[in-house]
Amino acid sequence: MTEPAAPFVHRLRPRYAEIDLQGVVFNAHWLTYFDEASTRFFAAIRATPAAVVFRDFDVMVVRAVLDWQRPAGFDDEVVITVVPTRLGSASFDLTYAAAVEGRPACTGTITYVSVVPGSPESTPIPAAIRSSLEARLQSA
Amino acid sequence: MTEPAAPFVHRLRPRYAEIDLQGVVFNAHWLTYFDEASTRFFAAIRATPAAVVFRDFDVMVVRAVLDWQRPAGFDDEVVITVVPTRLGSASFDLTYAAAVEGRPACTGTITYVSVVPGSPESTPIPAAIRSSLEARLQSA
Amino acid sequence: MTEPAAPFVHRLRPRYAEIDLQGVVFNAHWLTYFDEASTRFFAAIRATPAAVVFRDFDVMVVRAVLDWQRPAGFDDEVVITVVPTRLGSASFDLTYAAAVEGRPACTGTITYVSVVPGSPESTPIPAAIRSSLEARLQSA
Amino acid sequence: MTEPAAPFVHRLRPRYAEIDLQGVVFNAHWLTYFDEASTRFFAAIRATPAAVVFRDFDVMVVRAVLDWQRPAGFDDEVVITVVPTRLGSASFDLTYAAAVEGRPACTGTITYVSVVPGSPESTPIPAAIRSSLEARLQSA
Repeated sequence: MTEPAAPFVHRLRPRYAEIDLQGVVFNAHWLTYFDEASTRFFAAIRATPAAVVFRDFDVMVVRAVLDWQRPAGFDDEVVITVVPTRLGSASFDLTYAAAVEGRPACTGTITYVSVVPGSPESTPIPAAIRSSLEARLQSA
Repeated sequence: MTEPAAPFVHRLRPRYAEIDLQGVVFNAHWLTYFDEASTRFFAAIRATPAAVVFRDFDVMVVRAVLDWQRPAGFDDEVVITVVPTRLGSASFDLTYAAAVEGRPACTGTITYVSVVPGSPESTPIPAAIRSSLEARLQSA
Repeated sequence: MTEPAAPFVHRLRPRYAEIDLQGVVFNAHWLTYFDEASTRFFAAIRATPAAVVFRDFDVMVVRAVLDWQRPAGFDDEVVITVVPTRLGSASFDLTYAAAVEGRPACTGTITYVSVVPGSPESTPIPAAIRSSLEARLQSA
Repeated sequence: MTEPAAPFVHRLRPRYAEIDLQGVVFNAHWLTYFDEASTRFFAAIRATPAAVVFRDFDVMVVRAVLDWQRPAGFDDEVVITVVPTRLGSASFDLTYAAAVEGRPACTGTITYVSVVPGSPESTPIPAAIRSSLEARLQSA
């Protein structure tokens, strides 16, 4: 029996430019943070931007559900875990949980459709990526 | 019996800088577009940025649910309707529906909590804004 | 003797998301504002995004010089004039002057190289665009 | 005789969201990258965001001169050196040089005015920061 892989973790610090008049990260930037985390997550499962993504594998976002628990501020260390929480034949969900100093800041579940690179046409998730996602799959 | 107000409409054109490698508006920008639409929507109900917002009325976003139907491209005319779809004592939902050439591109429902300007503390929605929201309320 | 064309003018309002902790437009957004103004400027000289740009004409930015005189705030009306101030065979300068309530906020001169669409290779400015730029040329 | 400090270096990877239709980092993001580098540079000379900046020390950007030598692409490793190149009583210049794979991509010199935190009023650079800048000063 194999242990499930530890959740993937990405860290970043909000830029000065991303902080709004309320002194907190503007809401839209969380989708960008989660996208940055997805780049590193895919690289970690060997779908590196340079080698794979866009040639053998590409995705489109079709749904995003975001909840904010607490704001993040300028230069806070934001720790984001990334976990696949649903795996279909041509689509999957990644669930992101961002925390600052151990306390939840923003969580999101994003639904991706696997597409033929360079087109909006859906296509089955490539087998190697599929099995990597499966090995990390957790119930939402 | 009064007719409900016609839905508020805001128009914008995606900037070159907002288009990604797939040739479409990057997902995070839709939250920014909806925020821009909310600025105009609040101005239309007399909560203008200069006169009211931040002094007598401010909000924090606590939840966003976004669905994409079809991409928008560089300089497309994006037409966004804004409708209140839930009205609580200290929070409310606005539902945004964006279309390009009459076809749905992205819809979103965003939950706002009314806060004491300059603080994260929730507070009842001011009466004048509340009644403006109520006059435009539609079921989701 | 023909009169020179009146300077091209583009108007926009800074978004909430573009205002930083100092309460003013973050510096990088001015390059985006000038890029948005250039889209409308090129459309006005009939190089519309849909019809021309990227197929018959494309540019790369190689130099930008920006000076700030005064900040712009949330939802201020920013008025940007766009004037060609240098015209070479394969490159040209546009000078942008942004004002808020008639007072200078930010000026910039951006140098563009005409490139073969889809490549970084420089190429002479197409004749029709060249003559439109020439008709509006002013000394810097 | 003391050696000058080695130039400060900051590394980052362009996000997917920052790449435009030409497949390269959109020009405005370079000002954001240089701002991110300045945050780390100031932290390195002990003007950390949390401890100092905005309370004892704040700046406004009044001029930026940017030159592009070569584009950067998605997820490239961008190496940015930061060097003070001018030091006045209430203003100074930082010069940024960004390279990808050892080849120059973008250089910029940004002029900062020291301001009273929370206001646009200029004020002498605090002594501790001034001497740190001086120790790293190089001719442009």
